[in-house]
Amino acid sequence: MSVAASTPEAWATLSLKALPHQALVALLRAFGNPSAILDASRAQLGAVVPEAIAARVQEPVEPESLAATRAWLADPTHEIVAWDDTDYPHALLDLGYAPPVLFFVGRRELLNRPALAIVGSRNATAQGADNARAFAHALSQAGLTIVSGLAVGVDAAAHDGALGGRGSTLAVGGTGLDRVYPARNRELAHRIAEHGGLISEFPPGTPPREKNFPRRNRLISGLARGVLVVEAALSSGSLITARYAGEQGREVFAIPGSIHSPLSKGCHRLIRDGAKLVETAQDILEELGMGTPGAGVAKHAASPATGIEGTLLAALGGDSATVDTLVSRTGVTSDIVLAALTELELAGQIAAIPGGLWQRLHRG
Amino acid sequence: MSVAASTPEAWATLSLKALPHQALVALLRAFGNPSAILDASRAQLGAVVPEAIAARVQEPVEPESLAATRAWLADPTHEIVAWDDTDYPHALLDLGYAPPVLFFVGRRELLNRPALAIVGSRNATAQGADNARAFAHALSQAGLTIVSGLAVGVDAAAHDGALGGRGSTLAVGGTGLDRVYPARNRELAHRIAEHGGLISEFPPGTPPREKNFPRRNRLISGLARGVLVVEAALSSGSLITARYAGEQGREVFAIPGSIHSPLSKGCHRLIRDGAKLVETAQDILEELGMGTPGAGVAKHAASPATGIEGTLLAALGGDSATVDTLVSRTGVTSDIVLAALTELELAGQIAAIPGGLWQRLHRG
Repeated sequence: MSVAASTPEAWATLSLKALPHQALVALLRAFGNPSAILDASRAQLGAVVPEAIAARVQEPVEPESLAATRAWLADPTHEIVAWDDTDYPHALLDLGYAPPVLFFVGRRELLNRPALAIVGSRNATAQGADNARAFAHALSQAGLTIVSGLAVGVDAAAHDGALGGRGSTLAVGGTGLDRVYPARNRELAHRIAEHGGLISEFPPGTPPREKNFPRRNRLISGLARGVLVVEAALSSGSLITARYAGEQGREVFAIPGSIHSPLSKGCHRLIRDGAKLVETAQDILEELGMGTPGAGVAKHAASPATGIEGTLLAALGGDSATVDTLVSRTGVTSDIVLAALTELELAGQIAAIPGGLWQRLHRG
Repeated sequence: MSVAASTPEAWATLSLKALPHQALVALLRAFGNPSAILDASRAQLGAVVPEAIAARVQEPVEPESLAATRAWLADPTHEIVAWDDTDYPHALLDLGYAPPVLFFVGRRELLNRPALAIVGSRNATAQGADNARAFAHALSQAGLTIVSGLAVGVDAAAHDGALGGRGSTLAVGGTGLDRVYPARNRELAHRIAEHGGLISEFPPGTPPREKNFPRRNRLISGLARGVLVVEAALSSGSLITARYAGEQGREVFAIPGSIHSPLSKGCHRLIRDGAKLVETAQDILEELGMGTPGAGVAKHAASPATGIEGTLLAALGGDSATVDTLVSRTGVTSDIVLAALTELELAGQIAAIPGGLWQRLHRG
């Protein structure tokens, strides 16, 4: 038995061979541990798995891949959490496709806490991002670990909101953990590494690859008791995550919105297909049987505005509108409307969104 | 038999006595018509209904009430549509509490057309009123008569939107038709009297009374195949109408909105309780079996496709896409994508459209 193969590295090496799940289970059952599998003869392997798989076990892995993993593991905060690790997420073990190895940085104890996934559009509206942040914070405070995918938009807002709460957050990457994708989230990833946890099933050095993101999504829903979709277009990775959640027996929650917002259409489709419509974090806690939370749950109250600004806020209502629409709704001239919109934007009460639309912000 | 009692006035007189529904049915069955009931002796009545009811039939009605009804009926456009009238709404007859008499002004043929009720808050937001108007217009154009309660806000917008369409509109009042309540809707009521229909089960002279509005709401839902709630607070007459609709076996539809809008909370509660979430008028037409026949329109739950085909359908979403786009969205090679697209096309789930694009078909 080689010394090199007696460590997490043996798991990593085995993982790089990307064996079919059932074959790997059979091999571990027969040989006891990854090092023994790697040291086994072709005949020994062939007695357990088909010849083609036995051959694949004995093929050397690409030296660069192994080198990238070795280099990454040189940092003592970088870990491999494998199937035989007691910290391996129990939630994944029953799903039939738990990755044999998770590359991990952060607080191991978060891997087996009750978790909720929060996902949604990369192009979230300002209100969508605020909602993600507020729900994540309240649910984290109530003890749920918030799982998301470290993308921009809803994902980033959810991680950010959860970091301050009791349950903290787990970010599941679709690349090697030496590649923070997207780069814009580098600072957030560092905070998560320190106060939460970063997870990837892909070995260090794995670049962003389109085909890996659905697998990442399946891990996100698999880790959680349920998935909350905050904002999603009809053609959206979030709907794929929600579908996985359904297949995995997880709850699916969705936040409704204006029928005129393309980013609500995905949520509305989910609700029509049986997802639970939620208005508050409390709705989710009740559905998960987690009773009344602490004080952490967001109640939203807009600060009362008066005069033309109050009129504009009332005219906006819960929806988005163009300047022209606001002019026609309020009967005020466009220059006055524009000036007041600017005031309201500076006051953080409204935001511009794509399409020349203005939207009210409700802060938790 | 008195001559005065052989006319619509006999129905009105009988109606003013407010007899229990079952007693009235028994009396009509026994005596054939209202005049005969009014002319019957106490002993004849007592052979059909309990003594207390027989006594009530023979008590004179308040002279002012009868006078108000007579005065109202003096206008030739004012009518009584009673149980024995072929134009009496069939939709009400099976409900067990159809008012014996409807006071009516307008186009009688609207009383037995397929109808949809649109109700909602008196304090509708600008967007809510716009939605009510737009849905009402589209559904009226599609042939549905829009029923509502002539209140301000959503009701008024729905009537207004429907008046221009093929199906027109019926307004159900909670007062006598000589009292337009609220006064603000006087001009709208005149347009409805001319191009649609005004209905009340309450005799002329009846002022606004809190207790009469739930009865009015029950009539609104009873006249319709379904009820659309556009905007509603949690404590709202619209939710009562929706409850009646459920009890009457009518469909309930609700428009979602921002979780921060108090006027969406009633709609969200309805959706959680099983109402259909709708984004477009088309959604309602399909649910009522009035969707475009040839195209076989959308049930939202696409048949559960799995594997690569499910992934492709999700990747297509509500949009069209090229093979290249699908390859990049799914990470699957183009030959596999093409093979799966062919399968989906054969299964009638997608179609090729000009420009090398593929589009999902949503079938009812």
